[in-house]
This record gives sequence, C-alpha cells and structure tokens, in this order.
Amino acid sequence: MPKIVLVAPEIPFNTGAIGRTCVALDIELILIKPYGFSLDEKSVARAGTRYWPHVQLSEYDSWDHFIANEKPAHDELFLFEEDGETSFYTPDYPENAYLVFGCESAGLPSDLRCALKDRLFHVPMRSGVVKSLNLANVATAVVYQAMRAKLA
Amino acid sequence: MPKIVLVAPEIPFNTGAIGRTCVALDIELILIKPYGFSLDEKSVARAGTRYWPHVQLSEYDSWDHFIANEKPAHDELFLFEEDGETSFYTPDYPENAYLVFGCESAGLPSDLRCALKDRLFHVPMRSGVVKSLNLANVATAVVYQAMRAKLA
Repeated sequence: MPKIVLVAPEIPFNTGAIGRTCVALDIELILIKPYGFSLDEKSVARAGTRYWPHVQLSEYDSWDHFIANEKPAHDELFLFEEDGETSFYTPDYPENAYLVFGCESAGLPSDLRCALKDRLFHVPMRSGVVKSLNLANVATAVVYQAMRAKLA
Repeated sequence: MPKIVLVAPEIPFNTGAIGRTCVALDIELILIKPYGFSLDEKSVARAGTRYWPHVQLSEYDSWDHFIANEKPAHDELFLFEEDGETSFYTPDYPENAYLVFGCESAGLPSDLRCALKDRLFHVPMRSGVVKSLNLANVATAVVYQAMRAKLA
C-alpha cells in the first residue's frame, strides 16, 4: 500500500483531514518535522474528528531520518510540486509508493527538489489564478489516483 | 467541463476549499441552499484565501430550481454517497457531468437518493472506522477522476 508523507506541515486542519483519508484507506501517514502545530492541539483532533487516534502514524525528525529508517527505493518516491515535470496521472504507482507533499506555504524544500528532480510530479491545473490546491485536497486526489488499480 | 454541485453545504472551510479547486480547474461551482454559513462570512474568504472572488458561482434555492434551470440530462448527474452502488472509478464522465455532493453531516437528502438511485456512486474506502471522507477532499478526488481524460 502507498504511504502519504508530509514534510513540515503547517496547518493542523489539513494534517487532520489527511489523517482521516489515511484511516479510510488503511494506509500509513508519515510526518516529518518541524510542524506548524502541536499534535496534541485541539485543532488536529477537531479536523480529524474522532479519527485521529486511528491514524497509523510515523514521525521523523528530518528527511534524512526518514530516508535512513524507511529506506525507500528511488523510484518509490513520488514528490508532488506545482512545477513537477510529469503529471500525477502518468506513473504506474508501485506497491510501496511514498507520496510526498511539502508544506502549505512553500512546498518542498529546494534541496529536496534538486536532489530528486526526476521524482517530481504535478497535479494539472487549468488556471493561472491558483498557484496550488489545498494540501489535503491534493493529497487525497493523488492517493486515489495511486490506488486506482487496487480500489477500482 | 464538469461542474461541482454542493447540496446544502454546512462547513465554510470545505466550500472555500472546493471553490479553490474549481478556480484551479476553471470549472463552475453550483451551491444549492440552505447553507450552514453566510457566503459573506470571513471563514469562506479565509478558507478560499484570495480565490473566492474568482469562483464561477451559481446559486439555487432548491434542488428543483437547480434542475429547472440547468436541465441536466439524467446520465449527466453523478451523485456521490457512501452507499452508491458503482465506484467513482467506473464511469466515463460526459463532457457536462454534474458532480453532486451532499452536506457534511447527513449526505444527500433521502428523497434525492431514492429518485436517482441509479446515479449514485461511491468513493471506495478500506476501513470501517471512517464513515466518510472530508467533503472537500472527496470532491477534489472525484473531479480529478472525472477530468482525467482532459488533463492527462
């Protein structure tokens, strides 16, 4: 099953909603610090309503800790960014895909984008007005695309 | 292009986020009253950040007004509900699909569900813990599925 990875998420409502999606799909949620909120904060609980305690949660202090512990293969990493070269519709997502999203305000750190340039994907938009979609919305759209073959 | 239809939405953050998705995809958002909030309320503006003024918005006082004005063909209506018989992955969405979602707490009105039983679709989940996904998340996942052929 794929996993959702949030790098330095800032808005608890989004992390809570993504947790709810993860519970619904029985997949793991990986959070990489720092966060813009406390996981004890009421807002996460409220956003995820009663589901937060059911989230299969892993937390890492940094991207390097994440890599060292999870040891993802290069082509198991899927980083989503507005300027990713390939559309998220294109890949055949492997069994163990890591679906990686950056923080709401700034996206993924630039060193990560450079180091994994060939693993950057975008979710197509048709308007120049909106720079990016809501993080929880886009993560849910991506995970349903990645799990299409399993769920259809 | 498809349109997103929200029947009696309750939570302004969700309507705002769906508006942002609609702007990003250059599609129309249709709201059917009553709402659980005012469209002037700060929370919608905050949720949609600076995008709300760009939403191509239509409002109707009731489902009947919506039908009378928009005149959707029967097979252009796609109602999403947890117990819909067909998966949202299955249909070939027509050019002018209406993607219809009920309110956060109760879903679609039961008379609508009965009258349009053959137009009910579900977004698959793998856990009994979560009854439903966040409305904005599921609407975004559905619209990206419906527009796959156009965007891919």
